[in-house]
Amino acid sequence: MSRFADRQGPIRLGMVGGGQGALIGGVHRIAARLDGAFDLVAGALSSTADKAKASGLEIGLSEDRIYHDFTEMAERESRRADGIEAVAIVTPNHLHLPVARAFLERGIHVICDKPLTGTMADATALKAAADAADAVFILTHNYTGYPLVREAKARVDSGALGEIRLVQVEYAQDWLAEDPSPDNKQAAWRTDPALSGIGGAIGDIGTHAWNIARFVSGLQPEALSADLQSFVSGRRLDDNAHVLLRFAGGARGMLWCSQVAAGAENGLRLRVYGTKAGLDWQQENPNVLKVTPLGGPTTLITRASKSTGEAAQRLSRIPPGHPEGFFEAFANIYGEAALAIRAHRTGDALPPHVTFPTLADGMEGVAFIAACVASSTANGQWTAL
Amino acid sequence: MSRFADRQGPIRLGMVGGGQGALIGGVHRIAARLDGAFDLVAGALSSTADKAKASGLEIGLSEDRIYHDFTEMAERESRRADGIEAVAIVTPNHLHLPVARAFLERGIHVICDKPLTGTMADATALKAAADAADAVFILTHNYTGYPLVREAKARVDSGALGEIRLVQVEYAQDWLAEDPSPDNKQAAWRTDPALSGIGGAIGDIGTHAWNIARFVSGLQPEALSADLQSFVSGRRLDDNAHVLLRFAGGARGMLWCSQVAAGAENGLRLRVYGTKAGLDWQQENPNVLKVTPLGGPTTLITRASKSTGEAAQRLSRIPPGHPEGFFEAFANIYGEAALAIRAHRTGDALPPHVTFPTLADGMEGVAFIAACVASSTANGQWTAL
Amino acid sequence: MSRFADRQGPIRLGMVGGGQGALIGGVHRIAARLDGAFDLVAGALSSTADKAKASGLEIGLSEDRIYHDFTEMAERESRRADGIEAVAIVTPNHLHLPVARAFLERGIHVICDKPLTGTMADATALKAAADAADAVFILTHNYTGYPLVREAKARVDSGALGEIRLVQVEYAQDWLAEDPSPDNKQAAWRTDPALSGIGGAIGDIGTHAWNIARFVSGLQPEALSADLQSFVSGRRLDDNAHVLLRFAGGARGMLWCSQVAAGAENGLRLRVYGTKAGLDWQQENPNVLKVTPLGGPTTLITRASKSTGEAAQRLSRIPPGHPEGFFEAFANIYGEAALAIRAHRTGDALPPHVTFPTLADGMEGVAFIAACVASSTANGQWTAL
Amino acid sequence: MSRFADRQGPIRLGMVGGGQGALIGGVHRIAARLDGAFDLVAGALSSTADKAKASGLEIGLSEDRIYHDFTEMAERESRRADGIEAVAIVTPNHLHLPVARAFLERGIHVICDKPLTGTMADATALKAAADAADAVFILTHNYTGYPLVREAKARVDSGALGEIRLVQVEYAQDWLAEDPSPDNKQAAWRTDPALSGIGGAIGDIGTHAWNIARFVSGLQPEALSADLQSFVSGRRLDDNAHVLLRFAGGARGMLWCSQVAAGAENGLRLRVYGTKAGLDWQQENPNVLKVTPLGGPTTLITRASKSTGEAAQRLSRIPPGHPEGFFEAFANIYGEAALAIRAHRTGDALPPHVTFPTLADGMEGVAFIAACVASSTANGQWTAL
Repeated sequence: MSRFADRQGPIRLGMVGGGQGALIGGVHRIAARLDGAFDLVAGALSSTADKAKASGLEIGLSEDRIYHDFTEMAERESRRADGIEAVAIVTPNHLHLPVARAFLERGIHVICDKPLTGTMADATALKAAADAADAVFILTHNYTGYPLVREAKARVDSGALGEIRLVQVEYAQDWLAEDPSPDNKQAAWRTDPALSGIGGAIGDIGTHAWNIARFVSGLQPEALSADLQSFVSGRRLDDNAHVLLRFAGGARGMLWCSQVAAGAENGLRLRVYGTKAGLDWQQENPNVLKVTPLGGPTTLITRASKSTGEAAQRLSRIPPGHPEGFFEAFANIYGEAALAIRAHRTGDALPPHVTFPTLADGMEGVAFIAACVASSTANGQWTAL
Repeated sequence: MSRFADRQGPIRLGMVGGGQGALIGGVHRIAARLDGAFDLVAGALSSTADKAKASGLEIGLSEDRIYHDFTEMAERESRRADGIEAVAIVTPNHLHLPVARAFLERGIHVICDKPLTGTMADATALKAAADAADAVFILTHNYTGYPLVREAKARVDSGALGEIRLVQVEYAQDWLAEDPSPDNKQAAWRTDPALSGIGGAIGDIGTHAWNIARFVSGLQPEALSADLQSFVSGRRLDDNAHVLLRFAGGARGMLWCSQVAAGAENGLRLRVYGTKAGLDWQQENPNVLKVTPLGGPTTLITRASKSTGEAAQRLSRIPPGHPEGFFEAFANIYGEAALAIRAHRTGDALPPHVTFPTLADGMEGVAFIAACVASSTANGQWTAL
Repeated sequence: MSRFADRQGPIRLGMVGGGQGALIGGVHRIAARLDGAFDLVAGALSSTADKAKASGLEIGLSEDRIYHDFTEMAERESRRADGIEAVAIVTPNHLHLPVARAFLERGIHVICDKPLTGTMADATALKAAADAADAVFILTHNYTGYPLVREAKARVDSGALGEIRLVQVEYAQDWLAEDPSPDNKQAAWRTDPALSGIGGAIGDIGTHAWNIARFVSGLQPEALSADLQSFVSGRRLDDNAHVLLRFAGGARGMLWCSQVAAGAENGLRLRVYGTKAGLDWQQENPNVLKVTPLGGPTTLITRASKSTGEAAQRLSRIPPGHPEGFFEAFANIYGEAALAIRAHRTGDALPPHVTFPTLADGMEGVAFIAACVASSTANGQWTAL
Repeated sequence: MSRFADRQGPIRLGMVGGGQGALIGGVHRIAARLDGAFDLVAGALSSTADKAKASGLEIGLSEDRIYHDFTEMAERESRRADGIEAVAIVTPNHLHLPVARAFLERGIHVICDKPLTGTMADATALKAAADAADAVFILTHNYTGYPLVREAKARVDSGALGEIRLVQVEYAQDWLAEDPSPDNKQAAWRTDPALSGIGGAIGDIGTHAWNIARFVSGLQPEALSADLQSFVSGRRLDDNAHVLLRFAGGARGMLWCSQVAAGAENGLRLRVYGTKAGLDWQQENPNVLKVTPLGGPTTLITRASKSTGEAAQRLSRIPPGHPEGFFEAFANIYGEAALAIRAHRTGDALPPHVTFPTLADGMEGVAFIAACVASSTANGQWTAL
């Protein structure tokens, strides 16, 4: 039983990473705050003391809960009566393992950005740490927080699409189409194998595409054949990946991710085709899900409309026609995390409709990256998953 | 100078209205919280004591700051050292005047939902109260918080569209296409003249359309000719309005709002045409602004992209392609309000780029409603504004 | 009985107007030819002999059937054994009456471009001529030839939309946003009251919008209130029109047409809302009709799909997903004309599904223009139709 | 020099295949007729005498020019003074070789539907026949007739996209998602290896996708890796294909074609990404080409607009905003064919802007099919092209 078993009110949250100039830390902070379920009270936003302090003060942390050493943070917070109950990890990938381990060991729940780790070895070690800990682990594959992605999954699960035959998924961007400027921190670490791990685009956004495809289709992967490229001269990680997919039962698929597709912003799109119907969802206009029964007209299922089921409606805040977006979807993952953490407090079982990306999903994501790299290295050889 | 002149940290906020079952109160709470600039600490969420209490506890208010009488709330909060600095008013329209007055008189800033009031008399009285008070008044015409609406305005202001000739604005919904169920609180008061005032659809959403058209085009209205209908049998307020518009300098326009347009969700769309270019923005996919120079191709200006200017970028949180939506736009109004309140603390002038709907905009909105009603009653006679 | 009662094969067609440099003549020629039902064999493509000859030779007419005087053409063709059976009139509006009369008097069917005439007086005279003649009169309000416009009408007629409440129709262009170059023949005559008649934009494209709204909705007009403008300095006819509409039974509507809406190409859009459903069709992507039942999701009805009925399918040539466009829709009017002409040959009744814009529709269109002009002149007074 | 060197007027055309119940024959007839450049005067529309006669009469052929034996037709037409100058071949694939050979040998130009042949052996034999003949050979890869596909190519050729990195092309349908009814002739032969050849979806629509990708990108293929499936039980040819592509110079691509993608109609889409810009075109709304310079906004290039160049404008018939569609694009191929045939008459060189799919393109298409089948059979082995 959690030492916070009797606690009411927002969950006290810490954050590691996300200092000034970082992108994803701010996203996590908004997501955590949006529904009022979390209260950010501590942070090691940078490993540099000065920057950690400046960053912490800027976002309103008490000076005594601003750290620059995450181990110290884990240590001290775990001993405070009002210590954090969960930590958000928003560092480059290579730190996910050590940071997560430090908090998991002390029973502090972890909300970790994706991919799980930069390498399979790290992933395995992190799994061991999580298995040994009495704490919840949530991976922020945030796109599964979109209500209509839940609706898509519910429709597949219900059999409305029939037997799934095809999964076409893509995630195209262009922000790395040229050599980034040196002061783009995000670009710097994402293109550095030491910080990012073995995957470039395939690790950063390919895993998102893979995760959402798996989440919605429910298909079990069998093997893949990948062709990875680094188009920008001197780049050490892939910036484009083409992947053929085979699933158990004979379904097939394609995954494309790119960070050099000139003109693409965040073009995540998932299409799933079954024997009875097909569906189509795009992140850039996420409040519409196209569903087409074979032989019938395409229907535009809008978020929170009467055409959506409970799985989508419980994650909506406002009637249809008022767009919810990226932050609300991300907040939905935090909302699921809050439910999981509260259930953990009391030992209650989590209701079946509560779902979030887990460590197992993270392991699968890293395995996906590794298989893509291996297949591409072997000139596209079909590689088991 | 404000008694909170030295205060740091989030602005302490109270709320009147927004109890269980209400829609817009929850929206304001998320908007206030999203960027961390406000802290909701007190509320008279309902005038019924039991419901006020249940509603307040549900959202985490301290029991001693849960009220059911807004005057008492204004009184007691104004005397607390940690009293609220601002109040959000999310009641039906007929209460905007008394509630706002109660807080304005005590120097508490007011963030009020639209329309300003249900009648012109109330609007005039509210203006008098605000003029007499040392407090900021913000009206939540939230659509002006969308970054690309700011971009649209900036482009008009810059002269990029040339001389404006035409403004086509519409806001179509269908949620009142049939007699609503009696337990739809929102529908109940919006269709009741005693609570909603003289305008139905024209008051609820017509004023939004009017406000955004005025905000972006910058045109000065001269006169309008309106045809208002109540299509649903027994309805006492308009549920559809067609309005022709004339602006100073010869520009013309059309405004359509409807709550009975079967299939429409929140179809707010603004098109502005000038001698040099036209633009087109739709709320349901708000991250794209279409701009077409005469003779050139339509360009899709996306939120936060390099094609946007400072006016839009300062209200964006995440790179383009990741959709921001309704809550972020609403939060932008709260963000502007926070800047205005902080400037008020210290007496600093507000930077010119900070802009929000004011009491004057609210007066204009009620005058617009009144003119529409008068014109329609006079069989569409052109009525001065 | 027609003198061509026994004739097989394509209908022999003549053309008046449509010489070199003209736009709409070429459109009629393609439309007439597309399905092989007509054979263009004679023409008075210009009133200037040289130009008439050059134009006629260019399109392959025999020299002996090239005329520059339409009366002579009517006379001589009516006496040839292989004379034309029908004539397409594609002149400026002011010639519609004399040309049509010349052919109608000789029993030659008339396929006339819209609007029917430039003035009400001409329209009345043309009606008299047509009433006196034993010939078919077809007006090329070509947009009613789109299969999905037929589908829309069929759905309204079937009651699927319930009782119609609202009709929103618009037709926006920008080709006259500036003073056109003098060698733009099309612009020259369309902006000249002597050639175009009393209506500018309202005559050229407003009548199209009006016609399609009437065709689909089936509503009977009662009155309108119009505000017409000429934005371009020195222009003698309207280039923009805003019109409020009232229909029998209480339905309301709005019509906007413009030739100065910067960025608009041929933005004809029709939306019809009933008590049970709404529909939305746009000419620029005419192969999709959006239909939304109240409370249900929008359905995308595609041309020739199983979701369309007979009225649409009989006018389709290719499976859905292969776009048919402007010429096919125009050809559908010619196709209906061919059926009507063939039925006239034998005296057979026309099957009820064959429908095309008639002289009565044309009269109604000119009456609509006249009412708009009158209402606008009277400062928007509601004017009966 | 052609025996028709002095001929004026439409080109006399014959047709083999395309009898009652066939789809593509009717398409060719409309395409040939639309611009008035061809006159269909002879046909062997079926190999069954009765059906050939009924089909021929129905479309207005003279009885003496209705054949059921294509060799006889070639023979007799080649001896008539008014014999056909060109023949359209719209039979199942297995007949392309013998039919084409019969006409080519007699100096009659061939306009042949795609793919060139069902097998590589047939393709080679056809090439030999064509090389030996004094006749033009045109393959109707009709999608290259869309003006905006020409515009796309022109922009790539001009260097506006920079160095091409990626080509993503897809063509998704669902008309074979289930076992077709036995009376669907089109489905029957397309799924029969004896008639269709070695490719199913990859032959029917994959070659279209391949052709348009090659046409626009100008890239030289190096190798592909394919995964072909037959999802419908008992189907002997592929109904879905996933293909990875490698081009000379390092560009990469993906091609997906499917006839079992529930909800897809004729979803041909091409995206090309270069170092400077990307473009996106979709057949289902072919009048818009999206072009996005890196770092700039997406521009919507519309057919015939001022933003298009000569390559697109010469193939447009009507101003932008009036949709041209499938038939017009197909007619553009016929238009190019007419220019080529006329140039052949006189021995004139073809102007460089006249372009159409040739026998070489057809050879390449069959080689593409063969490589896909070979690669898929070898479990996705990269196969040279």
